[in-house]
Amino acid sequence: MFIFVLILIIMFDQHPHVKLIDNYISELELPNFPAHLYDPIRYILSLSGKRIRPLLVLMSADMFGHRNRQQVLPASCAIEYFHNFSLIHDDIMDKAPMRRGKQSIHQKWNDNVAILSGDALLVKAYEELAKCPPDKIPALLMVFNKIAAQVCEGQQLDMDFETQNDVSEEKYVEMIKLKTSVLLGGALQLGAILADASEMQQELIYEFGVNLGIAFQLQDDYLDVYGDPETFGKQVGGDILSNKKTILWIRTQQLAKDSNKDEFASLTGDPSISNIEKVNRMKKLYALLAVDQFAIEVKLQYMNLAFSKLEAIDLPATSKADLLGLAHSLMNRAK
Amino acid sequence: MFIFVLILIIMFDQHPHVKLIDNYISELELPNFPAHLYDPIRYILSLSGKRIRPLLVLMSADMFGHRNRQQVLPASCAIEYFHNFSLIHDDIMDKAPMRRGKQSIHQKWNDNVAILSGDALLVKAYEELAKCPPDKIPALLMVFNKIAAQVCEGQQLDMDFETQNDVSEEKYVEMIKLKTSVLLGGALQLGAILADASEMQQELIYEFGVNLGIAFQLQDDYLDVYGDPETFGKQVGGDILSNKKTILWIRTQQLAKDSNKDEFASLTGDPSISNIEKVNRMKKLYALLAVDQFAIEVKLQYMNLAFSKLEAIDLPATSKADLLGLAHSLMNRAK
Repeated sequence: MFIFVLILIIMFDQHPHVKLIDNYISELELPNFPAHLYDPIRYILSLSGKRIRPLLVLMSADMFGHRNRQQVLPASCAIEYFHNFSLIHDDIMDKAPMRRGKQSIHQKWNDNVAILSGDALLVKAYEELAKCPPDKIPALLMVFNKIAAQVCEGQQLDMDFETQNDVSEEKYVEMIKLKTSVLLGGALQLGAILADASEMQQELIYEFGVNLGIAFQLQDDYLDVYGDPETFGKQVGGDILSNKKTILWIRTQQLAKDSNKDEFASLTGDPSISNIEKVNRMKKLYALLAVDQFAIEVKLQYMNLAFSKLEAIDLPATSKADLLGLAHSLMNRAK
Repeated sequence: MFIFVLILIIMFDQHPHVKLIDNYISELELPNFPAHLYDPIRYILSLSGKRIRPLLVLMSADMFGHRNRQQVLPASCAIEYFHNFSLIHDDIMDKAPMRRGKQSIHQKWNDNVAILSGDALLVKAYEELAKCPPDKIPALLMVFNKIAAQVCEGQQLDMDFETQNDVSEEKYVEMIKLKTSVLLGGALQLGAILADASEMQQELIYEFGVNLGIAFQLQDDYLDVYGDPETFGKQVGGDILSNKKTILWIRTQQLAKDSNKDEFASLTGDPSISNIEKVNRMKKLYALLAVDQFAIEVKLQYMNLAFSKLEAIDLPATSKADLLGLAHSLMNRAK
């Protein structure tokens, strides 16, 4: 079992389901016209995402005993299209020039093209839902709508936080839960619905995904400062340089007193401090206040909560191995 | 019968269904938080739209014999929310400062708020679909998705046309069909689906709506130049002043030769011509080339096509009177 999980950790992005998903997406028949509407959709879907969210739909359906993958693929890709829609619009709002190492859509075309092609991709997500078995569509639609609305709420909270100076840890976790984690939980729930899982099982797998997503995001905050630049794939310290309100930043703001408070104010407010110096001094402050350890502990709490939800599902361990492998892989990346 | 239709023409915006729709919308429970996400939705839904599209859903369901209006209201309001979502995003793209005599959302808040609250309102539209009778949801969802994608295509074509100098009448009609008319046809089809109308009946009522919508838009182009400013409610000549490619503009571009061609080039290209002079000289050119009559004729063709589709539906005239009254009202406004 241990070796099995280890293999899965290494192999999950070569999981055979990923090929199924990629094939299904590549067969999507998009009109060629109007080009400015559909070319951007083709473009973002072709950028090499990890397909984690659609994989979760398939793995959840597998786990609950659904054997017809062709029937699960539309819901799986509805989740992937929704995710990509949200990236297109978020990149406009965040003025992000890059996405997955390439130009973002609003950068490559313009804001209007990005707004409208994002809208069309959201509609495409619902078109995939409409391809699901008809008797399952009402339940799938209800869950999908709920998480879609929550993701919008999360993005709004994230933007609100930029101008707020009193963001608590609780509010921060609520924001990342809405913005990123409910989509993971929702993906798993869609798979469970398709596989006729009970409401209790749906609830547990949803909670597994949500808590795993929170743990993953907290880990992301940590790795942005302490990750290996080679494996993490982003500029280390980017969050510090942009004064992003991460779990580390928020905890520091709460704990820092006296000279530490002055140091935090200088680091976040003095533009004359060089980038290297800013990152190094902030890391010292983090160490002094042990916020790095705090972030790890909170991550572990959510991770353990996630695993306890998976554990509670009344199925044999062998059925859960695939999903557990993916979860471990996500929780151990880039260390 | 004639008097009955006449009364309906005058009364349609006091139609009892409009009150039902307004009540239903006012009872929509939107969260208060995040305020920047939901306040703009409350704002746009409170601006006094005519509720024509949701009215079409109810009237179509009525016509095909559906008697439970509470069951039809969710689909009816899904259409209204979709329409308002598209207005929010179109106003960003068109940089329109006003909507229904009030500030547009991107103007009152900002572009990001308008993008995201628009997204959330589109999701709300799908939430309304999810409240429909479960056995009808798959069919409703499929039609809704199709028209939603077409509306996006129409908006993209409209933007593309701004920089194209060879827009034909056919392309123009195709654009307005996608951008505005399929939503009217789709609204009627949703009502028909809810009332268990046959596929043939669904097709006919859809075509009625689409062709009525095209006729309405062509009439709008005409009224922008020739309408009574008191009743039309917009600045007369606004399309001429902004060089908007209307049916009149496109036809003039095609027909104008020699000195008329020079005059058209001056009017559309010379910024030193005053507003009053530009409108007056363009109206003279329109009269010379009889494009005003042409617009009226094309409008009548689509209007008659629409009425022939309604006629072809195998139901007694009394069942169709309400919808016919609304159609006549739309075709005779502001003259």
